[in-house]
Amino acid sequence: MLSPVQAVEGLDAGSGQESIFKDIRDTVLGITRKYDRAYWLQCAKEGRFTVESWQAMCDAGLMGLSIPEQYGGMGESLTGLIMMQDLLSRAGTPNLLLVVTGLARVPLVKHGTPEQIERYVVPTVSGKKRICFAITEPDAGTNTFKIKTHARQTRDGWELSGQKVFISCAEDADFIMVVARTRPAQDGDARKQGISLFMVDARAKGIEKQKLNINVAGPDRQYMVFFDNVKVDKDALIGPEGDGLRCLFDGLNPERLLTAACSVGIGDYALARTVQYVNSRAPFGQPLGAYQGVQHPMARAKAHIDGARITMYEACRTFDAGGDAGRASNTAKLLASEAAVEACDAAIQFHGGYGFDADYDVITLWPFARLLKVAPVNNEIILNYIGQHVLGMPKSY
Amino acid sequence: MLSPVQAVEGLDAGSGQESIFKDIRDTVLGITRKYDRAYWLQCAKEGRFTVESWQAMCDAGLMGLSIPEQYGGMGESLTGLIMMQDLLSRAGTPNLLLVVTGLARVPLVKHGTPEQIERYVVPTVSGKKRICFAITEPDAGTNTFKIKTHARQTRDGWELSGQKVFISCAEDADFIMVVARTRPAQDGDARKQGISLFMVDARAKGIEKQKLNINVAGPDRQYMVFFDNVKVDKDALIGPEGDGLRCLFDGLNPERLLTAACSVGIGDYALARTVQYVNSRAPFGQPLGAYQGVQHPMARAKAHIDGARITMYEACRTFDAGGDAGRASNTAKLLASEAAVEACDAAIQFHGGYGFDADYDVITLWPFARLLKVAPVNNEIILNYIGQHVLGMPKSY
Amino acid sequence: MLSPVQAVEGLDAGSGQESIFKDIRDTVLGITRKYDRAYWLQCAKEGRFTVESWQAMCDAGLMGLSIPEQYGGMGESLTGLIMMQDLLSRAGTPNLLLVVTGLARVPLVKHGTPEQIERYVVPTVSGKKRICFAITEPDAGTNTFKIKTHARQTRDGWELSGQKVFISCAEDADFIMVVARTRPAQDGDARKQGISLFMVDARAKGIEKQKLNINVAGPDRQYMVFFDNVKVDKDALIGPEGDGLRCLFDGLNPERLLTAACSVGIGDYALARTVQYVNSRAPFGQPLGAYQGVQHPMARAKAHIDGARITMYEACRTFDAGGDAGRASNTAKLLASEAAVEACDAAIQFHGGYGFDADYDVITLWPFARLLKVAPVNNEIILNYIGQHVLGMPKSY
Amino acid sequence: MLSPVQAVEGLDAGSGQESIFKDIRDTVLGITRKYDRAYWLQCAKEGRFTVESWQAMCDAGLMGLSIPEQYGGMGESLTGLIMMQDLLSRAGTPNLLLVVTGLARVPLVKHGTPEQIERYVVPTVSGKKRICFAITEPDAGTNTFKIKTHARQTRDGWELSGQKVFISCAEDADFIMVVARTRPAQDGDARKQGISLFMVDARAKGIEKQKLNINVAGPDRQYMVFFDNVKVDKDALIGPEGDGLRCLFDGLNPERLLTAACSVGIGDYALARTVQYVNSRAPFGQPLGAYQGVQHPMARAKAHIDGARITMYEACRTFDAGGDAGRASNTAKLLASEAAVEACDAAIQFHGGYGFDADYDVITLWPFARLLKVAPVNNEIILNYIGQHVLGMPKSY
Repeated sequence: MLSPVQAVEGLDAGSGQESIFKDIRDTVLGITRKYDRAYWLQCAKEGRFTVESWQAMCDAGLMGLSIPEQYGGMGESLTGLIMMQDLLSRAGTPNLLLVVTGLARVPLVKHGTPEQIERYVVPTVSGKKRICFAITEPDAGTNTFKIKTHARQTRDGWELSGQKVFISCAEDADFIMVVARTRPAQDGDARKQGISLFMVDARAKGIEKQKLNINVAGPDRQYMVFFDNVKVDKDALIGPEGDGLRCLFDGLNPERLLTAACSVGIGDYALARTVQYVNSRAPFGQPLGAYQGVQHPMARAKAHIDGARITMYEACRTFDAGGDAGRASNTAKLLASEAAVEACDAAIQFHGGYGFDADYDVITLWPFARLLKVAPVNNEIILNYIGQHVLGMPKSY
Repeated sequence: MLSPVQAVEGLDAGSGQESIFKDIRDTVLGITRKYDRAYWLQCAKEGRFTVESWQAMCDAGLMGLSIPEQYGGMGESLTGLIMMQDLLSRAGTPNLLLVVTGLARVPLVKHGTPEQIERYVVPTVSGKKRICFAITEPDAGTNTFKIKTHARQTRDGWELSGQKVFISCAEDADFIMVVARTRPAQDGDARKQGISLFMVDARAKGIEKQKLNINVAGPDRQYMVFFDNVKVDKDALIGPEGDGLRCLFDGLNPERLLTAACSVGIGDYALARTVQYVNSRAPFGQPLGAYQGVQHPMARAKAHIDGARITMYEACRTFDAGGDAGRASNTAKLLASEAAVEACDAAIQFHGGYGFDADYDVITLWPFARLLKVAPVNNEIILNYIGQHVLGMPKSY
Repeated sequence: MLSPVQAVEGLDAGSGQESIFKDIRDTVLGITRKYDRAYWLQCAKEGRFTVESWQAMCDAGLMGLSIPEQYGGMGESLTGLIMMQDLLSRAGTPNLLLVVTGLARVPLVKHGTPEQIERYVVPTVSGKKRICFAITEPDAGTNTFKIKTHARQTRDGWELSGQKVFISCAEDADFIMVVARTRPAQDGDARKQGISLFMVDARAKGIEKQKLNINVAGPDRQYMVFFDNVKVDKDALIGPEGDGLRCLFDGLNPERLLTAACSVGIGDYALARTVQYVNSRAPFGQPLGAYQGVQHPMARAKAHIDGARITMYEACRTFDAGGDAGRASNTAKLLASEAAVEACDAAIQFHGGYGFDADYDVITLWPFARLLKVAPVNNEIILNYIGQHVLGMPKSY
Repeated sequence: MLSPVQAVEGLDAGSGQESIFKDIRDTVLGITRKYDRAYWLQCAKEGRFTVESWQAMCDAGLMGLSIPEQYGGMGESLTGLIMMQDLLSRAGTPNLLLVVTGLARVPLVKHGTPEQIERYVVPTVSGKKRICFAITEPDAGTNTFKIKTHARQTRDGWELSGQKVFISCAEDADFIMVVARTRPAQDGDARKQGISLFMVDARAKGIEKQKLNINVAGPDRQYMVFFDNVKVDKDALIGPEGDGLRCLFDGLNPERLLTAACSVGIGDYALARTVQYVNSRAPFGQPLGAYQGVQHPMARAKAHIDGARITMYEACRTFDAGGDAGRASNTAKLLASEAAVEACDAAIQFHGGYGFDADYDVITLWPFARLLKVAPVNNEIILNYIGQHVLGMPKSY
């Protein structure tokens, strides 16, 4: 059977194999042919979201990937969703809204009531609504237990106040999934309690968004979001009050994998562009690509990308089979983000001075790839996870 | 379904899942509990092959892995064979004879006559006979087209003369698969012609074996083997005369994967031993393992091992499905050999001075792991493969 | 005696040592306190050269470093010039015009007539004139022998035509030192002949400058410069006609060292900023800087910077003593550029999401540091030099 | 003036320069021509110390380097001593006894009485006596404050008991400098007190030496040394009682630098051997050294070695000038040990299978080089030093 890796790489040429992965691939490639890197860069330049390509994905049914069929989805396949991100990124058009959507829909589908799923998830499949996600706070950083944004219960629902940072696509979303305290912080094991998930109307009164000056080329912008006594109704609480972290937990692996897919995809894109360049440029007589000083670093980067991609789809397979995908997801995120940076760095080096000319769109690749070593979680945290949970070493922080 | 990776890592605890991979795992672990690292080191010290553990593997049917059932095997699953090597190595007992056996049996099964399979392959399943493999020559190095060992056709068969180097287990094998010229070397595409495969009695007249002074701890020794007009019968020629390289080709991916399995296995063994050490040693109060200066390099090595292992089993899956496993096999070999060295290096560093004391059996791990960046093929050749055949860059050598 | 390294690092506190290096240091620091990183960023934002700080350096006599006293300079000390660049960069204000000035003045002083030195060099000491340098061409890349810009001898002088790329500060210079063919290209050893150096009025008729869209934060902009039958007088030819490459050669080591100084300086600046951040931020209770996962990569980067800086000043010592500084200069350039990128990468990683916010001025550091692995010559060329000229290996390209 | 770096590299050919560094170089090279790598390996094979070459160094006056002239030395030049070790190692004959001698003589010369210097130091210059050094203990590891070996004051002197590990050359020395508690351990700043230095007759009653099974090729063997109520006279105490760590401190930088010299020297030796090999071997037509896949890693290793060597001599210069050499010494030790391993690893890789054959003496180089990342102090401790004392970050352990 065609594996997702093979489908992505197009290794099925002439095999006549039928496969859902091949269908997804062909559909995504149809969209990226129309909404290509040039379109993506144009949106970035105009400072606007890639509305048209997003809607095209919805129209093609792709946003139904990972959503149960009863809600109009294509079934609970994370693999398909990851393939979509992988292929978008391989075309030079990664999508950060897809990361947060993929994350947020997991607790919604798993812990939401049918009404909540109808209200918050179903419209994301058709494209009528978009969701973003707000967890990080200026002082808490990667330590979620320290968040201060809080929701106070009122007669009609809740009132949220606090401040979130690095919120991708906040201006382009209709709903923000907000992680907020509903009880004061406690120590020890109890610290995992008291945090809840809310779906907040992104245009509600009391919300203010401030665009950050993030130096990463792309149409997805990041925001500081302020919540000042924002009123939300009772139905906005997803899952049990105080148990939000546990609900959220199921979405962390998809989130890591959706960023891993951005990484391996953009890495491949960078390499493909560079192969083209070094195979044609020949200042010393033979093509630059014929020198091992050029070819070996690129081959090494490709090996790292391929290993990361295969690891990523193994994590998807485990996730889709209901297993614990934590180990493979964390490993994939680490390997993918490092491989992508390695590839983009090689792209810069082997384009020489042109590597820094924005008109050549090479230097523009690096910050995006580099960001994924830090977001959505930095690689030190990943190493801590592997050290503790895979190798069985003591907590180090 | 339990994946081979999960089976190897024992991630099926309490799952009640039935799986062939679980069976293989349990069988191998039963053997390594009896024939453990201490046994392996003792054989190394005595300079003898691990006869007992090899026979135990045969008796348990494991040597039938990858062999069709009609020849008494367990079916054509490379995955199972790789798992065996992986698990042996994770127990600190990798087996180089398994590499060359796994390699040599591929062309035998695919291109041999039923009589040849009966004669050469079937006894390897029961353990009555063992096979080693001789291709490398002192002057040719990694350039197989330059080999000079030649076979001259006689009335009764062939006469072989030449010299081979780095032949693992030559003294412990009953047959040597020898790669020899049957026609003079030619240039261009024709250079692929004129080389043939022979099965030679390892104790035939005219064969001399000289043990090399290889500084790698282990019971598998390497030899220089001289062939001086060695007579072999007609039946010794495997596949068509002059077409040996093509026949051999099918075995190269299994060979790369069998060494990749040694790598990831020994890497895990080194890490496991080191975790034990750094979790218990605490010269500054808390365990060494609680410092990120120790934990992060180990976690990083583990991530690289896991990525390489998953890639290796993806290659197996492709191979077992009849696909082209070249890409994933080469990538797995590269990633695995680098990860193993990284792990063994961390083991040395974090054992401090004890890392160099042979009685602690840590320094003894490194040369074996390091060898696999050079053998059976060096990683520069792998990078050339990826550069040319995956990325589409020009030949660089 | 206080070494330049110690002077730069301020390790002379309370030593009462007198030293020219200390004087240079104190003078430069006086200037960078006034014209600091904020000033430098403001110039970058306004797209203008750092005119005020440049003039302040001239007024303080610093631009007389490396210029013989008879021409109003401070004597032929490359060391002092490098210290200036090092200290400017450590303050976050590296200067690329200083690189090209430092390069161009070497052949001028060594091969120019007294009148030419009076005309082209002396005004650079006072600041009345500024020089930039034009060698690279779109098709030739790092292979200077392939340049096509040519000068045709006329009755009154020469006429230049051609195209140059990546010319730093072309709009801010009064003179451009142009490398141009005066005879057709030849093969073999003769290929070193036929290229000449010209000093061209940057505002001469026939010169057109096109700003490149270089994505590197800083006040120094790069240009494509077109020369269309630009007339220059006889006196514009520096050194013997056809022997320009040899004349230029003496300036290559200073050029490498002036960029190495940018590298080590900006690396130190990045680390200093990051130390401040990680020593104060403590999301998990203790400062981030107390975790070895943070501290060790930073310490490693610092070790690499210090080794590169010491190597750089050793090269200066050799140069100032009239020795062959090629070996140490190339090594310093390689080590410095890699160390700077390592430091800036650590700065990004340990600032987390803020590392990508331009308002935090961390992501802004990286492209500048990264550029120095490619400019003025890429590190592959440096490795070729070391391989051939230090290790005695064959030419590889 | 010829710098030590230039002298070591032989860059003074035909310069006619006179220099003490040139004299030292020529003297050492005279000795290594006679007592070369083959001699060194032969001693290693016989399990004996390099008595003849050591005596030749003494006879040539080289062991008087770093010893004041009034005691028959050549003056207090650490630079010269380091050059000797560097050159010995570049010839493939590093000397670990030189490391411990160089370390132990510093507190002896600085804190010993004239009688003690006469007794313990002067005979080391002539070669009549040899000194080794014992600090590390099995449980204390790198935490010297935790040592348990103690000296009890008696009427006639002291009685020592305890256990030391990794003691180089214990069987070949006449005296052992032993670090022992003379007062119980305390906490806080007081923990630096209570440790004293003793010179113990290596053949005294109560001393037992047990050779360790250290897997590092070389004539210098390591021992576990047991002290069981060993009686030493009053005169054996060096420096003030209880203040041994402070006295010892002055010797730590020379110790780091003497091992750094082993590293850069052996690294150069490995590269030189490999250049010879890859320049002559040509399985694919042109020499292996002409491929950038071979040449670039070697050039990179050479650059790292050269940067480390220059840093090492800068530390010597500072030390000899009476300055604080801690920073440069630690940096040199880190850079040198990593560069040496990089070079030896390249040597292995590019020798292919022969890299593992002990008869080719390539695999034999690695463990020695690798040891120096752990001994005399591991590189993590060096990183801690740089993090805290150079960068100003918090203590991390």
